Amino acid sequence: MDSESNVLEELKRVNERDSAVQAWVSRHSDEDIIKASDAYKDGPLSGWTLGVKDVINTYDLPTERGSPIYVGNQPTEDAACVALARDAGAVVTGKTVTTEFALFTPNVTRNPHDLNRTPGGSSSGSAAAVADGQVRSAFGTQTVGSVIRPAAFCGVVGFKPTRELLPMAGVATLSHAFDTVGWFTSDVADCATMFRALSTANASHESFQGRVGRYLSHQWIAAAPETANVVDRSCSALMNAGIEVVDVELQPHLEVVFDAANTILHYEIFRVFAWERTHHLDLISDLVQRMFVRAAAIELDEYLSAQATLRSAREAHDQFMTTNGFDALLTPSAPGEAPTIETTGDSVFNRVWTSLGVPTIHLPVTSGPSGLPLGIQLVGQHWSDQRLLAAAGLAESSFGHYP
Amino acid sequence: MDSESNVLEELKRVNERDSAVQAWVSRHSDEDIIKASDAYKDGPLSGWTLGVKDVINTYDLPTERGSPIYVGNQPTEDAACVALARDAGAVVTGKTVTTEFALFTPNVTRNPHDLNRTPGGSSSGSAAAVADGQVRSAFGTQTVGSVIRPAAFCGVVGFKPTRELLPMAGVATLSHAFDTVGWFTSDVADCATMFRALSTANASHESFQGRVGRYLSHQWIAAAPETANVVDRSCSALMNAGIEVVDVELQPHLEVVFDAANTILHYEIFRVFAWERTHHLDLISDLVQRMFVRAAAIELDEYLSAQATLRSAREAHDQFMTTNGFDALLTPSAPGEAPTIETTGDSVFNRVWTSLGVPTIHLPVTSGPSGLPLGIQLVGQHWSDQRLLAAAGLAESSFGHYP
Repeated sequence: MDSESNVLEELKRVNERDSAVQAWVSRHSDEDIIKASDAYKDGPLSGWTLGVKDVINTYDLPTERGSPIYVGNQPTEDAACVALARDAGAVVTGKTVTTEFALFTPNVTRNPHDLNRTPGGSSSGSAAAVADGQVRSAFGTQTVGSVIRPAAFCGVVGFKPTRELLPMAGVATLSHAFDTVGWFTSDVADCATMFRALSTANASHESFQGRVGRYLSHQWIAAAPETANVVDRSCSALMNAGIEVVDVELQPHLEVVFDAANTILHYEIFRVFAWERTHHLDLISDLVQRMFVRAAAIELDEYLSAQATLRSAREAHDQFMTTNGFDALLTPSAPGEAPTIETTGDSVFNRVWTSLGVPTIHLPVTSGPSGLPLGIQLVGQHWSDQRLLAAAGLAESSFGHYP
Repeated sequence: MDSESNVLEELKRVNERDSAVQAWVSRHSDEDIIKASDAYKDGPLSGWTLGVKDVINTYDLPTERGSPIYVGNQPTEDAACVALARDAGAVVTGKTVTTEFALFTPNVTRNPHDLNRTPGGSSSGSAAAVADGQVRSAFGTQTVGSVIRPAAFCGVVGFKPTRELLPMAGVATLSHAFDTVGWFTSDVADCATMFRALSTANASHESFQGRVGRYLSHQWIAAAPETANVVDRSCSALMNAGIEVVDVELQPHLEVVFDAANTILHYEIFRVFAWERTHHLDLISDLVQRMFVRAAAIELDEYLSAQATLRSAREAHDQFMTTNGFDALLTPSAPGEAPTIETTGDSVFNRVWTSLGVPTIHLPVTSGPSGLPLGIQLVGQHWSDQRLLAAAGLAESSFGHYP
């Protein structure tokens, strides 16, 4: 069977590379993975291997959230997304490394393209494992840039659906206004199959216009020259494929939401982590403790004002997309190639889109000056995930498959 | 100390009445409760006793969700709302009875005003325990009508804040589009204190206009004569207190959202319960299994269309409230007095408001023809919880304290 030989390939790859890439917190035995893959199950993900970010509950492997507070923590049930994927035929091979609480403290995982570089975060292990051929697909979560950024740094497809389209039951909360389950695959076809499996979408999808907006964003100053190049190159490829690409002016509603999102994130994190703060402060890293101190200072009125800003921006974005007939905006995924391992990189090009709650996808396109992956982000509008995935499929074929 | 003697009163009440009312799934020992109450803690909820609905995680008592699947299930940490309340000084006395998964199957709890009547659901034990003087306050959750309805049937104040204002971390998901933590208290002052403790609101609050809309709703045909009476009586009391009460015509956006909410609820429930469905179907009640069958038939396109309807309704509601300068709409909480124990009663007057995500509060007003509590619901607009609570405080004093 094809999927069986793929699984054997992946296990070989883990065996060779795990000590270097360090994508996994815990894994099932090779024997158990092979046995589970052999037990053919009818479903759209039949025979797929799946890594699960270690902030997502699994009944058969611990969920430690990258924190000493949760060492050995064994949930009694699967998160809803994991149960849905397993029911569709997927075989969970293991839990992937996350930063502490899916925040910004780097963990052990390295970028498979260069072990001195970060894989990005917080879904570090999921992106690295898929990029390194150790697993076919992997779940991540995104609250600011935790799917798109590691997908960019590792050179795989990373997708964050519309917020709330898929259940977060059994996924650790960070900031409920933004948290979304997403996933990594090596191409758009797999990404779309996963979407259909989890949402039970039928074959039909929304009308596709063939019209994309090129949007450099208020954070453009953070873009390295190679990022400007990959945006240009991608737009040219799209135009060559017959897609209309329109330059879009900076939108005021996308400027103000940048700071508002940060206010909301901090207000919520302080309350979401009430248990950990009051019971295990000594087991929380200094970096996160300092974040809690800043967060504690945010008052309800500031939060409410930020929520009002966010709400207007959400409405304005969809109106803007509809008025212009855009399937997607094309915009940077990250400032440039993966930086070195001291940080997980900058989510400056992700925060606005995540806070809007709209679907967004990273597509790898080429390699940068250091030979590391570069790509672009396509951003859709609320509930138009299938239209975005259709646009992404077309874009991917216009770019040529990476690497 | 005043709070100590109150605690002793409550424990006496539990001792006398628990075998009849059956509000509790599990409790700490009287000794431990007294000890915890004596250990004075500085905070806005200092000395308060608190019941916690058994779908909300607590590190020191199991969380069984009203389901044999979760018997003995012991979480390792508190839900965020519980940790926040404890940090503010509250003493958790026990877990309160919920219907299975916070859905509609009646459980053991009886209405403290008449043991042949339902306390309402799904936050049955929380409403009954507060109404019966067994605890000062109790957390519930509302996805359709699970706070407002039991508050109405038991004759206590029940409050559901704006959706997403407070974290749901550690609270079992039912339908993520709607789930909200709320609480029961015996008066509005306690309700508002709880809100400030959890949200860290400062003293100031939004401008209060003294203007309320009387809204009978598209579901008015379900209202018993005593419900029409209590609405009239409440409006008269408000007007006597100098509040302007305006008759509001039926709003089309509030009609369409009724069915849309049901579609969303079913689509989400089918996915949220993927684990329970695929691992423990035999331990799920027939009523809920049949709900899953109906739910499985809903396709993504229907869900997306319902989400579009919901979104428009949410925008229209806030515009409508702002344009009219309403502090609140006054509308029924339930069709009438608590029915007998075969069901938990009808949530027909709750679904629209919960689906909008706006804050809503039940206020007890009087007794009905069978001597059971009757009251009204005040509904606000998004993020205007403090304004609604201010209106509720004024309304409560205009009604006179119940009972």
